[in-house]
Amino acid sequence: MSTSTIGSTISSSKVEGTAVYNLQGDKLGSIDDLVIDKRSGQVRYAALEFGGFLGMGTDRYPLPWDQLRYDTEKDGYLINLDKSVLEGAPRYTEDDEPDYDDDYGRKVYNYYGSTWPSI
Amino acid sequence: MSTSTIGSTISSSKVEGTAVYNLQGDKLGSIDDLVIDKRSGQVRYAALEFGGFLGMGTDRYPLPWDQLRYDTEKDGYLINLDKSVLEGAPRYTEDDEPDYDDDYGRKVYNYYGSTWPSI
Repeated sequence: MSTSTIGSTISSSKVEGTAVYNLQGDKLGSIDDLVIDKRSGQVRYAALEFGGFLGMGTDRYPLPWDQLRYDTEKDGYLINLDKSVLEGAPRYTEDDEPDYDDDYGRKVYNYYGSTWPSI
Repeated sequence: MSTSTIGSTISSSKVEGTAVYNLQGDKLGSIDDLVIDKRSGQVRYAALEFGGFLGMGTDRYPLPWDQLRYDTEKDGYLINLDKSVLEGAPRYTEDDEPDYDDDYGRKVYNYYGSTWPSI
């Protein structure tokens, strides 16, 4: 998909479906959804779709937004993340979304070494 | 569509398509897209789809995120906005998205009486 962006903003519909690569160049999957804090309007996670086959049985991995860097050359997001780290990462199935509360947020952010913004 | 939300977060795919009402109970349209500041991960606008017929010829009205309040009873967003105010509001056609830069942001936020967060 096209993810051309103008200025310093991007639309959610363009993020959804965009590929995610690690720094080794491995494609980890693609962004399925964004989870937004309702009160502050802050994006908390991008849900990475990873694994499965032909879209069946894939898991969702919530990634802290601040870990993703958009790369125009790759037309996708880059994240400093080894595949082996992803194997132990928090995940859920599409039909079993977790409670995205502060506890879950802290767990996810801690896993990736990000600081959970408690507001 | 269902927009049930858990805790204090909501996912972009659930926001997209959600109805928007004003305080008089008029349906103004529905959210088509979210525009996100790439650096901060902050939602800048929700793009309201309004007007047209059967999805043809509708315009997009960028609304400051902080103006929208989710109402569980209506299963949609509420905004304190008279239809006559919307008639003069910044808008664009789907295939002619504007540069969402600071100047545009200030223009939109000023129109609705919100303060543009310059970061």
